[in-house]
Amino acid sequence: MKIVIVGATGTIGKRVTEFLSEGHEVITVGKRTGQYQADITDAKSVRALFEKIGKFDALVSATGDVAFVPFKDLNADHWEIGIRSKFLGQVNLVTIGKEFINDGGSFTLTSGVLSETFIAAGTSATAINRAVEGFAQAAAAEIGRGIRINVISPDMLEDSKEAYGDFFPGHYGVASCKVAQAYKKSVLGIETGKVYKAVNNDYAN
Amino acid sequence: MKIVIVGATGTIGKRVTEFLSEGHEVITVGKRTGQYQADITDAKSVRALFEKIGKFDALVSATGDVAFVPFKDLNADHWEIGIRSKFLGQVNLVTIGKEFINDGGSFTLTSGVLSETFIAAGTSATAINRAVEGFAQAAAAEIGRGIRINVISPDMLEDSKEAYGDFFPGHYGVASCKVAQAYKKSVLGIETGKVYKAVNNDYAN
Repeated sequence: MKIVIVGATGTIGKRVTEFLSEGHEVITVGKRTGQYQADITDAKSVRALFEKIGKFDALVSATGDVAFVPFKDLNADHWEIGIRSKFLGQVNLVTIGKEFINDGGSFTLTSGVLSETFIAAGTSATAINRAVEGFAQAAAAEIGRGIRINVISPDMLEDSKEAYGDFFPGHYGVASCKVAQAYKKSVLGIETGKVYKAVNNDYAN
Repeated sequence: MKIVIVGATGTIGKRVTEFLSEGHEVITVGKRTGQYQADITDAKSVRALFEKIGKFDALVSATGDVAFVPFKDLNADHWEIGIRSKFLGQVNLVTIGKEFINDGGSFTLTSGVLSETFIAAGTSATAINRAVEGFAQAAAAEIGRGIRINVISPDMLEDSKEAYGDFFPGHYGVASCKVAQAYKKSVLGIETGKVYKAVNNDYAN
């Protein structure tokens, strides 16, 4: 299987790349790193990426920015970050990628635990994550050609606890190797239109 | 209670206006109709609206456009419609409106049944509705001052069956007076962060 991993050098992407490299041809993509570079917020850049890669069987997106800003200060510019990057960036990967993916292929996108649980400064993340999940689930029903689309919703990572732990009170953090299993299930499994919650808490259920 | 109804001359807005006018001061707002006019996609227009209305106790938004386009044809311009109008338009009403609403007031926004069930050409609506719901629920947790925020998710209306019935196979349509009760529950009740499903089918649960 030829698998494209966008955001391959991030904390999650690295693990997913490691897990899926066994027995598969993995192509790593990053904004500035990896075998190929692309800016997911730019449709032309995404199209150029796929033209270079050619046909593929699966795409994993473990990328996308969103603003963390207290609700009282949240303004239009903050919204644009999540809309352009984590939402429309991932939409670009599917919308343009569908012209290059083989029949029966799969797209696996990333949302996050904040779609189900709320934290201070997390309102933009919640809305954007929900949009990603809704997009993927509805598109999974519409896309055809046996193409599957799932979403992984990871909790705060154990590896990020030092940097972000204060923003996620009561979250233990989830091991990145556990999160990577969810991507593996999506790519190598048969389900579609699913949101796999890779969480390590009892709040997000 | 001083209640602002945005989209007051739409099918739902008319009923909500009727239901809430008993015993309350209702202010009707539309793009081109109602007592006041505003374009929710334009932050300046929204601010000018609130400056004219002054302090209020509740706002109902029963408005917002989204594109219905088959997934294979869905492009960036189509996404912008839902993002600017149904999503960021309603975000504007809360973000700017919070400066004018009284403590303990409420915002009631509108999503739709497609957040939970998928139809051909509905992918954009699903994603946008989910974003509205996520925004409202997370913002309800963040906003403070006793301000409540809920969302009503109406099924296809009975009144719209002739126009849209073919897009919603198997949906009977829900009576607009039933949908208006959900808005009444949100405005006059005590709950916050809720999505009230005003549906008449067994699919969206």
